[in-house]
Amino acid sequence: TNYFKIAVLPGDGVGPEVTDESVKILKTIGSLFNYNFDFKYGIIGAEAIFQTGNPLPEDTLELCKHSDAVLFGAIGDPSFDNNPDAKVRPEQGLLRLRKELGLFANIRPLKTYSSLVSKSPLKKEIIEGTDIQIYRELISGIYFGEKYTEEDGSYAYDVCRYSREDIVQIAHLAFQDAQKRRKKVTLIDKANVLDTSRLWRKVCKEIAKEYPDVALDFMFVDNAAMQLILNPKQFDVILTENMFGDIISDEASVIGGSIGLLPSASIGDSNALFEPIHGSYPQAKGKGIANPIASILSAAMMLDHLRLEDAARKLRESVEHAIENKYVTADLNSEQSYSTSEVGDFIVDYI
Amino acid sequence: TNYFKIAVLPGDGVGPEVTDESVKILKTIGSLFNYNFDFKYGIIGAEAIFQTGNPLPEDTLELCKHSDAVLFGAIGDPSFDNNPDAKVRPEQGLLRLRKELGLFANIRPLKTYSSLVSKSPLKKEIIEGTDIQIYRELISGIYFGEKYTEEDGSYAYDVCRYSREDIVQIAHLAFQDAQKRRKKVTLIDKANVLDTSRLWRKVCKEIAKEYPDVALDFMFVDNAAMQLILNPKQFDVILTENMFGDIISDEASVIGGSIGLLPSASIGDSNALFEPIHGSYPQAKGKGIANPIASILSAAMMLDHLRLEDAARKLRESVEHAIENKYVTADLNSEQSYSTSEVGDFIVDYI
Ligand SMILES: CC(C)[C@H](C(=O)O)[C@@H](O)C(=O)O
Ligand SMILES: CC(C)[C@H](C(=O)O)[C@@H](O)C(=O)O
Repeated sequence: TNYFKIAVLPGDGVGPEVTDESVKILKTIGSLFNYNFDFKYGIIGAEAIFQTGNPLPEDTLELCKHSDAVLFGAIGDPSFDNNPDAKVRPEQGLLRLRKELGLFANIRPLKTYSSLVSKSPLKKEIIEGTDIQIYRELISGIYFGEKYTEEDGSYAYDVCRYSREDIVQIAHLAFQDAQKRRKKVTLIDKANVLDTSRLWRKVCKEIAKEYPDVALDFMFVDNAAMQLILNPKQFDVILTENMFGDIISDEASVIGGSIGLLPSASIGDSNALFEPIHGSYPQAKGKGIANPIASILSAAMMLDHLRLEDAARKLRESVEHAIENKYVTADLNSEQSYSTSEVGDFIVDYI
Repeated sequence: TNYFKIAVLPGDGVGPEVTDESVKILKTIGSLFNYNFDFKYGIIGAEAIFQTGNPLPEDTLELCKHSDAVLFGAIGDPSFDNNPDAKVRPEQGLLRLRKELGLFANIRPLKTYSSLVSKSPLKKEIIEGTDIQIYRELISGIYFGEKYTEEDGSYAYDVCRYSREDIVQIAHLAFQDAQKRRKKVTLIDKANVLDTSRLWRKVCKEIAKEYPDVALDFMFVDNAAMQLILNPKQFDVILTENMFGDIISDEASVIGGSIGLLPSASIGDSNALFEPIHGSYPQAKGKGIANPIASILSAAMMLDHLRLEDAARKLRESVEHAIENKYVTADLNSEQSYSTSEVGDFIVDYI
């Protein structure tokens, strides 16, 4: 079939601006390759709270459930962050969406672009050639375990829970990906302290037997936080639980020199969501300065997921063309820069 | 009084080698300033498991309880790490010691030495002038909450729990330290997801009122993992819970260019422990290549704690003298390097 129903959730902050560019470009790609992308919009996050009181309205959830893929912008609003008493938060919308759609694996590819290496806070010789694929478990662990705050505020707790199945399903994805790459999986955990980490090690060791061509390494999360900076090239596929993945993948995102380039995919058995990793970036909202490339490359991951590899290739090629020709936003080139939509237009023209 | 009873726990890996140098130097300092340091040795960690089956023998605990300070080497042994079924682990010894001695605050100062800036994986202009003090909560949170693994291995959980008091006591230390510094505390948490983090924000906001000259900032841990690399100079005092502190402080330790220089203090109401942060570094064990400076600077923090500021000053001065004269181990100077004990001897001679 040539018909694909795409749920578009622009969300908060710069989400709408960057998502607009992706939709514009996907339309162009669609005409070129004769794919019919049917874009249906939904609200989520702070935007949805302001309009409906609910960070994930039922309409939006239904829309996503009945789509071939979800194109996501960003979530979060500073007015909620500093208010520990807020009962409803934008992030709850995204967390519930992940859970309801069963998006158990968050995948983040990390590569360095040679024309941008100089923008990294890290030295060139340390980062050049880095090529990491991060698999973060996304719907269990401390994010989704029981939470409790005593009414008088005297104590609180959060439970980090993992079942064997939670681990099995994402571990297989990570090992399969490693088989197509440099054949190494590094499990990041804290097995010297946590029971859940020891379960991760045990289950991953078992699964590793089914992939004899892939090496399985273990690394404590504190050491990993150092090794990512000291020697990022040692990593091929990283596999980790939800909270450690949140921290480690954001740390790793700095390596390449621009978080404005990094896409992500969140995959489930029957749904998938594609999202730039930069977040809502509220300071830039409405200014036309946000880098649309992370969203556009997320759209490329979506095309891959829909098995439209020719279209995905074309899209990536056009992004590389824009970067090589320095047709980029100010975060990548302070001397001469283009607005969010100018970068999108340039890519559309090239396609 | 001039008499101080010091419990010495060399522990595992390179712990004994580096601790030997600190003891040697403290003896010299003692003669010079006329302080009587009475060193009593105890076993802990893998070493203690091999000898007694217990990672923290009662004798060792009693020794520490009745000492003025504990000088600690390192803990951990690779033979335990990859064995998820090991019932007894070296780390349990250190964790139990922290708990039994009530060492609620782990303090890690981070400074860059201008002669070593070039060794950092980060660019000089990013790190030069960095001066951070990290306060990590050390005896609560997910480290010490209930842990459980179902017998058939089908699931496991770890509970992260915080009470108001756990937070209050370390927060006061952090604010008081900030008053003597650049007057800024950054609380690192995940308040958009965790109940315990929201409790941290709430309690810290209340305490901040008692320190009107200190600014309190909030930062999500994923963002902090980025900001530490992008712009470490923005931080003055960092305050955070146990698990986040473990990750963030190890990440931060890379900034200065050598983890072999970084000391730490773990403080309680009536006890204190001083420890280099590099850990057991098993690959280097027995080779005489381990950098003793982190342990020696931990001894300097101990002297400060015992209110022997003159001695502490002298000790730090002598360490700086060794670094300036490149009388250092191979990790700091690959062209000409000295052994662990040669560096110690040089410092002794200088004193
Ligand atoms: C917005 C927040 C809840 C979310 C997370 O922590 O998962 C974000 O940081 C991410 O990584 O997608
Ligand atoms: C050895 C380990 C249990 C310990 C910790 O995680 O606290 C260490 O990493 C540290 O930071 O002191």
